[in-house]
Parts: sequence; structure tokens; C-alpha cells
Amino acid sequence: MRTGIATVCLSGTLKEKMQACAIAGFDGIEIFEQDLVTSPLSPEQVRSMAADLGLGLDLYQPFRDFDGVTPDLLKANLRRAEAKFKLMSRLGMDTILVCSNVATATIDDDGLRAEQLAQLANLAGDHGVKVAYEALAWGKYVNDYEHAYRLVEMVDHPNLGTCLDSFHILSRDWETSHIEAFNPEKIFFVQVADAPKLSMDVLSWSRHYRVFPGEGQFELAKFMGHVVRAGYSGPVSLEVFNDVFRQSDVERTAVDAMRSLIWLEEQSAKWLAGNAAGGAVDAGGALRRRYPMELATLPKVSEPAGFNFAEVKADDTAQLEKLLGQLGFAFEGRHRTKDVQLWTMGQARVIINEQAAQHAEPAIAALGFDVDSPVIASARAQQLKAPVVARKVQADEEVFQGICAPDSTEIFLCQGSPDGTAAWTREFGEGLEHPSAGASAVIDHVNLAQPWQHFDEAVLFYTSALALEPQPFAEVPSPSGLVRSQVMQTSDGAVRLVLNLAPVQQAPARQTYQEHIAFAVTDLVATARSARGRGLEFLQIPANYYEDLDARFDLEPGFLATLQELNLLYDRDADGEFLHFYTATVGSVFFEMVERRGSYDGYGAPNAPVRHAVQYDSLHRSQPSS
Amino acid sequence: MRTGIATVCLSGTLKEKMQACAIAGFDGIEIFEQDLVTSPLSPEQVRSMAADLGLGLDLYQPFRDFDGVTPDLLKANLRRAEAKFKLMSRLGMDTILVCSNVATATIDDDGLRAEQLAQLANLAGDHGVKVAYEALAWGKYVNDYEHAYRLVEMVDHPNLGTCLDSFHILSRDWETSHIEAFNPEKIFFVQVADAPKLSMDVLSWSRHYRVFPGEGQFELAKFMGHVVRAGYSGPVSLEVFNDVFRQSDVERTAVDAMRSLIWLEEQSAKWLAGNAAGGAVDAGGALRRRYPMELATLPKVSEPAGFNFAEVKADDTAQLEKLLGQLGFAFEGRHRTKDVQLWTMGQARVIINEQAAQHAEPAIAALGFDVDSPVIASARAQQLKAPVVARKVQADEEVFQGICAPDSTEIFLCQGSPDGTAAWTREFGEGLEHPSAGASAVIDHVNLAQPWQHFDEAVLFYTSALALEPQPFAEVPSPSGLVRSQVMQTSDGAVRLVLNLAPVQQAPARQTYQEHIAFAVTDLVATARSARGRGLEFLQIPANYYEDLDARFDLEPGFLATLQELNLLYDRDADGEFLHFYTATVGSVFFEMVERRGSYDGYGAPNAPVRHAVQYDSLHRSQPSS
Repeated sequence: MRTGIATVCLSGTLKEKMQACAIAGFDGIEIFEQDLVTSPLSPEQVRSMAADLGLGLDLYQPFRDFDGVTPDLLKANLRRAEAKFKLMSRLGMDTILVCSNVATATIDDDGLRAEQLAQLANLAGDHGVKVAYEALAWGKYVNDYEHAYRLVEMVDHPNLGTCLDSFHILSRDWETSHIEAFNPEKIFFVQVADAPKLSMDVLSWSRHYRVFPGEGQFELAKFMGHVVRAGYSGPVSLEVFNDVFRQSDVERTAVDAMRSLIWLEEQSAKWLAGNAAGGAVDAGGALRRRYPMELATLPKVSEPAGFNFAEVKADDTAQLEKLLGQLGFAFEGRHRTKDVQLWTMGQARVIINEQAAQHAEPAIAALGFDVDSPVIASARAQQLKAPVVARKVQADEEVFQGICAPDSTEIFLCQGSPDGTAAWTREFGEGLEHPSAGASAVIDHVNLAQPWQHFDEAVLFYTSALALEPQPFAEVPSPSGLVRSQVMQTSDGAVRLVLNLAPVQQAPARQTYQEHIAFAVTDLVATARSARGRGLEFLQIPANYYEDLDARFDLEPGFLATLQELNLLYDRDADGEFLHFYTATVGSVFFEMVERRGSYDGYGAPNAPVRHAVQYDSLHRSQPSS
Repeated sequence: MRTGIATVCLSGTLKEKMQACAIAGFDGIEIFEQDLVTSPLSPEQVRSMAADLGLGLDLYQPFRDFDGVTPDLLKANLRRAEAKFKLMSRLGMDTILVCSNVATATIDDDGLRAEQLAQLANLAGDHGVKVAYEALAWGKYVNDYEHAYRLVEMVDHPNLGTCLDSFHILSRDWETSHIEAFNPEKIFFVQVADAPKLSMDVLSWSRHYRVFPGEGQFELAKFMGHVVRAGYSGPVSLEVFNDVFRQSDVERTAVDAMRSLIWLEEQSAKWLAGNAAGGAVDAGGALRRRYPMELATLPKVSEPAGFNFAEVKADDTAQLEKLLGQLGFAFEGRHRTKDVQLWTMGQARVIINEQAAQHAEPAIAALGFDVDSPVIASARAQQLKAPVVARKVQADEEVFQGICAPDSTEIFLCQGSPDGTAAWTREFGEGLEHPSAGASAVIDHVNLAQPWQHFDEAVLFYTSALALEPQPFAEVPSPSGLVRSQVMQTSDGAVRLVLNLAPVQQAPARQTYQEHIAFAVTDLVATARSARGRGLEFLQIPANYYEDLDARFDLEPGFLATLQELNLLYDRDADGEFLHFYTATVGSVFFEMVERRGSYDGYGAPNAPVRHAVQYDSLHRSQPSS
């Protein structure tokens, strides 16, 4: 698959954008006109720079408001077009995107439109240019991709074809399978963009909220499947207008973009394998023989079977040790060569890393996941352009395959075991393998704060590299604003990651958003009582909360009293019940203990505002404002 | 008018919110349930704190999903309601908001709903509570305010009335005049919120994009006029869910909120005066005798007649002096007592203030506006809670009435003169009044960067205090993201302010968004040639721009060559033409020279991306990334 990206997706100057696209590994780019017009580079300099960078200049875009106009306007439009064709010849480009008219069209007549497009195609032919005509979702008269294609067929000119843009097609819910009936020689270009399903006017949706494939909710693999089956083999190029990408680091966004195409390529091959048209298509590699577009695939991974460990890091680890001990974790010893400790509670393993920078406050540093094959999973992640984590390994020590998540958390791909133990624990303490001793517990979920510039990137990262599935998006009120919350989990719920987008903080004192690790136990009340006995400092829940709880759930008075006595939070839905409590925060990290009853699958979302308010209050009191 | 605000509008804890509301001068508040549930304050403590602060506790809210349910659910709902009624008695509150059911209603039957609401009203009566029933815009069966009122009439119980919320009514485009037919004794509460007209699902619109009155596009004065004419005289309370307000400084947001109600009160009185129902109503003060709600008014101001001056400030003013001199400004001398200089070009007056902090880069510090009566305008602004600017004044010097805009720019209200001169200029140089000497020029517009937390506040500030009118909102692409641009201007265009919301910057080097002052001249080409002769450094416009300009406008070749030779930008629309150029930036400020031909009323918006790209490029080159 030939990969491409429109320069409008990225921040910076044309030069910066081109360099970032080359580094990220794109085959070609679309030049967004404004990026050229505002650039000090001459067309000849752009051409030679692209050649040096090994980037194809695949599409010049957009040319707007050409068709369906009065004769006077047509004349001006043809003059304008010829100027652009001459410019393209200086750039060494041969394809231009012409969008269906949104502003100046006054005549709704396919015959006239075809006649005008024929004139444009003739002029284009004189300059060796191919015109890719695209129906915009909000085009005045032409807003359906099949309508645009019918016009192309009517004109039937070698220099006129169509451009298919997934956003304009899927935002309008057009049926995509009809693409397969198109003559592939008349498909000049394919643009892909994903988007969250929003109910808003399609122009605003398109201009601000598009995302890269895998970061939204469109059925892009199916769209691509139809394109491939039509016989198209040209560029597949991203055109994503997104307010955040436009202000993020250009090189990083380019890598995120490239990852989305690599993932889409795999998903498209998968869709094709699973949707053989009339049984005529072989699965897997046979596709390559069948369709002109070659689809590369990736090393396959299944979703992880569970968390292998969580790692917290600090300069002074005393507070972390104290907290884990009070929660009921057992200290299993130190690593034989590294300054790290192992703490366990059943199958919940926490590494305390003492190798943090001086004065570094406690924070979550790494997560380990159980996968079928760490080597294959790591190879896949690396092909998806995940940065590799370098770790020193001594002889006889387990080699961890580590990659770096968008928020800089280190992700380790570990060998799972049927009994839930981990061989690497033998490197700790007396060299014994540490069985699931003590109270039974597992890591239930981990809640990570995401930088706002990399939220969508994180969703794609965990989807593509770790096979986690994004759940419906939620928003939680807190005293400093709404917290956006995206759960990524496996189908069985064994791995649950919560990606939180914290509101921009006002005071420097509150700049670190608190993250946490939650452990599941089978008897939360007993766990809480023991922890209290060991002196654990619980997050203090206001009395008003328990009154409201009683008003909502009509709880048995003794049970309600126990909840309040122990600062436990409670939720209930049709599937079951959820009990949980939080520790105080040390540095930017705190711990949660949960008990899931029945098939309760949530996270106590109604209680999250209470947690935020109490944490805000205690932070506020400990750091009085100036 | 009794003023109120819901705690959900603000950031912080319940205690912080209550304190901020008291400081801003609200008569009462609505307690949003979650704010109480998450608070460590007991109901009794909240009650006593409100009493100490002089705040009425006017509404407990919301009680959700009560009506149209099965008998089992009704029983649970009544139990839940009774718990809240008891809580309200501890708080000393007597009115609760009950929203029409959005989630659990299964029976669409007004008879049943009325019967269930009657049970609720009976229970409320037992506890001395009044139930204000409100139709949510997305209520499952009840989403029209007249429907909610019909139910209230059907039940006809002294403890059941309706709550009118402008958002739920105006977002659905319901006809508001029918409010006048309501029995005022059945209107228990009125909530007001404004909103920009967005085309999106009404729930998202409501939960994220509400703004304070005067910051959106709803016809709130008309809505309030109907409410007043119905005979309502209870609280008028803000309920504004807004993502930005929720994370902004609580005290500042409360003042912004209070300003919006003071403004709305005046606008409502104006609407009533201008819309006498059947001639039965007297204009102006007579309203107070006619309707039970008393509407306070403000000192009246007309829109300003023009800019009186602009002031730039720096520690080292040499660059500013050089730039103004090169542009053709004349140095008129120093102030007789202050370290400031006066520079003029025709009626364009620029003060260079040398009293900046050490190392402070050049920046826009103040703007003067010509108004009919500075004293009245200042009194009005102060009643609208604008902070006053303190300036030292010597005997014989003109006393400037100064207020502080939300972005900290100082706004001076000056006495205009018929011939465009300013008496205070006699305090400069030789003590002469400085006539409109030299080339003719005026301040055309000023472009100010706004902090993202205070953008809506700024719109209301300039609307209410300076009588500027917001124009349609625009967005301009720049290499670091989209720039939001809001023009505020007088009806004749004599005063034009452009409020820009810059994208969050990544690199510290780019954190200051560039602002500018634009001067209008009658012959831009001549002005540019003279400036070039004096060595002015123009913002360098790329050659690609002129090629595109030619493709778009088919300009006369000699004219095009002149534009390119002088780095002039050009725009044309149906009303006229616009020529302009920019200087290089010093500190965070640059200057623009413009020539308006015909009735061109814009700002050369198609050229703004060029300006942003070139400025980005030069900033980037002077400060290489690390």
C-alpha cells in the first residue's frame, strides 16, 4: 500500500512538515495549497527537497468551487486552474484534487457540470495533469461519492477521475460497497480519515474533529476493503483536519499518522480475509495475488491475558513501602543486581524502583502485561513505530521486551504463565520463585493521565500494539474541571487501562494529575479492616456522600454504617455491585482497592467526583494558595 | 431583580464557590447536589456559612427521573425525594428543582404523570418544600416548557410550580411569548443561560457550551421580558455548564457571571420599554410600578466614536521609536511629568510608555476610546464590576477614566472632540495642542490576544461596558494551530477590536502571541514607498503568495508587481478592496498599515495565514529549537 499524508494534518512550516513525513516513513504527501502559498520555498525548491527526502508529491489540493457555474465564472475558473496546472508542472506534480462546488454553483444540471468538467479535463490534458474530482459531504449539489463518479463516467476523459475520501462518504452514511463496481482506472486518489461519531453539522465535524484511522469510530477497514476489491492500487493518504494535531509536535504527529496507516493496512487485509466476495477470494497471503494493491501485514498478537506487574518509582521510596505494607502487600526482597524491590499480594506484583532522579516524587513508571509471545508482540509494536525501552540485563536474568507509550510510561511485554506466577520473581530476595502467597489479589486496573496533545495517539497505540479495545468515552466532573476518561480493555476485562485527560491546571501546585493502580480483592471489608489495623491513611469520604448513597440505594443500615466507618465507596447496577476505597496520595500516585460483586464491569463512575473533590480539597489545604 | 447562580457554574469546592458568589454580590445561589455530596461541610455548616455570607440558598438541584414511571420505581423515587426534603430542611432550603424524566420514564401519559407529581407535591407539602418542575430539552416525554406548565396546572397544588430555563426553551426554538399567559404564582424559579448557536445534539451543547448572558446568541432580553410581563418576581439565576468556566479562577468567573446578570437586567428593561404590550405599558421608570419585578438600570453609554490613542510600553523603547518614525509618525515630544512620549500621524496617536518593568519587551499596554461622557462611561463600567485603573494625575492634567479589560489591557474613556483632536496632547512637548499634522491616518483596528480562560468574559466586557457589537466568529490557520478570532466593533466601524485566541504554544519561545495596532491611510502604496525610503523592515511576503493572488484575482500586471515589490497584501470582495502591510515584530507587538477602498469592511482574512506563517518562520529561525 502506498502511504501518504496531506500537509494540512500537521503543524509547522511546509519544510518542517516534509521533513517529519520523510522521517515517519511516508511514501508521498499531498500538498495543501495554503502551505505552499505561505512558504518562502519556491516550487522548484519544494520539488528538489521532496526528491532529496524520497517523498512523492502525490496530490495538489484543494481546487475549490469549479463546477455548475455561469459562463463568466467558468472562464475565470479555467484561468485560475491553468495557473495551478503551470505551478504543478514546476512542482513536478501530476494530480490535483477538485472538490465539488460548495459556494459559487448556481446551476444544478449534470449535463452542464459534465460539460464544464470536460473543459477542465481538456485543459488538464494539455498540461499533463490528472483531475481527481471529489464530492464534499456538504457540496451544494454534488455531495454523494456515487454522484461524483457518475459525472466522471459521463465525461469519460483520461484526465478526469474521482477521489474517494472516507470522511465525506462515512459521515453521510453512504453505502460503501458500491465502490467495488467502479472502474479502478477512474479512481485517481483515496483519502482516509477517521472520526468520533458526533452529532453536529458535518462541516464543523470535518474541519475540527477528524482523527487518524483507529482513533475514531468509522468502519475504515470495510471502506478500504471495498476500495481494494475495486482494483485500486494508488496512494492511500491521510487527510485529517484536527485542532489538536495542528498544534502538536510535527514529528510526533507524523509518526502517529504513519502508525494509523500501518494498522489500517493490517485491518483491511483482515476484513478482506473475513469477507470473501462470493467465495472467490482466498484468505491471507492469497490476497496479494488477487488484487493489485499489496497489503502488508504485521506480526499477530492476541489481547494480553492480564497485568504481569506494575512499577512505581521514587527518589525516596519510604512512603510507597509504607503504603503497600499497610494495604497488605508482602515485601519479597530486593533484586539481585538492581535497586528495585518486589512487593506482592497474591498475583498482584508491584515493583518499587529506587533509581529515580534526585527529589523525584513517587509516580507510576512501568506496566507489565502477560502476552503469548513477548518477542512477537514486541516485533509488532516496533513495526508500529513504538519506541523501544532500553534496559540493562545481566546474564541469567529475564529479558524484558519494553516499548514506550505516548505518555512515556514503559510497557513491558511479559511471558504469562498458566498459574499466574512470573519466573522473573526468582531474581528477587532469596532466589525463590514467589508463589501467590498471602491474601488473594490481582491488579484490577491502572489509571494513567495523558497529555492532551497525545490522547488520540494513546488510544491508537493501545489498540494497535496491545489489542485493547476502546470503550465508550466518559466525562467526570472535578473541582478543577471535567476529566475526560477513556477505558481501554480486553474483552474479558482481565486488563483494564483508564486513560484520563485532566483539565489544564491553573495553579502550579496542581499541575501533576494523580494516577493510580487498583487491586481487586475478594473481601474488601476485611481488607479495609486489616489495613486500618495497620494504620493505613484512607481517603476521607464526606458524610454527605453516605446520606446520598442511602437515598439512592436504600441500603441495609448495618452495611451502610460499615461503608461509612471504613471510608468505602459503593456502586450498584443491573450487573452487580462495586465496593472500593482509595489511599492518600504520595507524589502523583495513589492506590485503590476494589471488590467486584456479580458481573459489575464498571469503575464506580458515580463516585469519581467524590474522589476528585476530596483529593482537591486535601491538596488545596496542604498547599495554601498565595 | 434577585440575582442567583448555580454552584455548578464555578470551579473549586462548595466553600470556595460560596465565598466567590458572595464577593461577586449575588443575592442567592442554587446548590448543585454533587457539590454538597462531595463536600466535607455538613448541611448545618453550609446553612450557617450562607447566612454569614449573606447568601440566600434559593434552589436545591437537580432531582432527576421522577415522573412517568412504574409503581415500584415511583415508590423508590418518593423515598429518595423524602430523603432530599429532610436534607433541605437541615439546609434551611425550601425549593427543589425536579427535571422531566430522561432515563427511567416508560409511560407516556399526562394523567399518570400528573398523578405522580401530585404525590410528590403532597409529600413536599408535608416538609414545607416547593417543587419546581422543569422540562429538559431532551426529556423523554416532556421536553417543552408549556407541557411542563400544563402538568403543573393539572395538578394544581400549592407545592408544585414550574421552573423556566432559557437554555431548554431557546435551544428548542420554542415560542417564548406564551410565558406571559402563565400564572406567576406557578412560576417557582427562572434559570438563565446563553449559548452560541451551534448545530449539534442538544445534550452536548447544553453540558459543555452554555455561556453567561451576553456571551452567546440567544434572545435573552426578550425571554426575560416575557417572564417579567407574566408577573414573576423571584430569583433570576444562572445555570451555565461550561468546560472553560469549570476550570477557571472561581472568583473571577463569579464576577463575570454577575456582570452578565447586571447587563441582562438592563437589556430586559430596554426590551420592555421598546415592546410595550398593547400600549398599556409606560416606557422607562414606569415599568417599576407596572410589574412586580424591579429592574435596575445602568448609566447609558453610546458606542465610542473612535480610538483616542493607543499606548505601547517597553523597558527599552528604541525599537518602537524607530518603527513609528519609519512608518511616518512624528515625534511630538515628551510628557511634562511622566516618562512617556507622544507620536502622531494625522489623528492616529501612539503613546510610548517608558515606565515598563526592567527587561520588559515592547507590548500593547492601553487603548483610549472617544466617548460622549468619560465620567458616565466609567460609572457604567464600574457598576459592571470592571476594575478601575489607578493613574497618578498632576494638577492641570486631564483625568483619565481607566478600567481594566479581562486581558489586563488598560482601557481609557476619553472625551472625544468634533475635529478629532485631543486636549491632553497639550501636556506633551512644548505645551501646544497638536493638530492633525502630517499624513492623514487613523487607528483602524487593534488586535489583542486573549487568555483562553477569559475569551467569553472579554466578549461580554466589551459588549456591556463599551457597547461594541460582536461580529461572526472566524478561525485562521497558523503553523502552530487554529487562531480563533472575534471582531468587536461599532456599527460605523470607527472602532474595531479583534480578540484573538491563540493556540496553546508548545515551545516556551513562542509563548507570547503577537498583538498589533493597525493604522488606516488613504494611499497605502505611497505610505509604503516612503516607509521603505526610511528603511522600514517589512514583513517579507513569499513570492508564491503573489502567484496565487494573480490566479485568484487576475490583477493588472503593473499593480501586481507593485504589490510584490512593496510586500503589500491584497484582498477584494463585493464591497471593495483592501491593501495592507505589516512591520516586523518587536517584543510582542507589530504594526499594520491598511487602506480600505470602497466599502470593504473586513481585515484581509484570506491573508492572515500568510502573516502567521511568515511570523512563525522568522521567530523559528531567530530561536532555533533545542
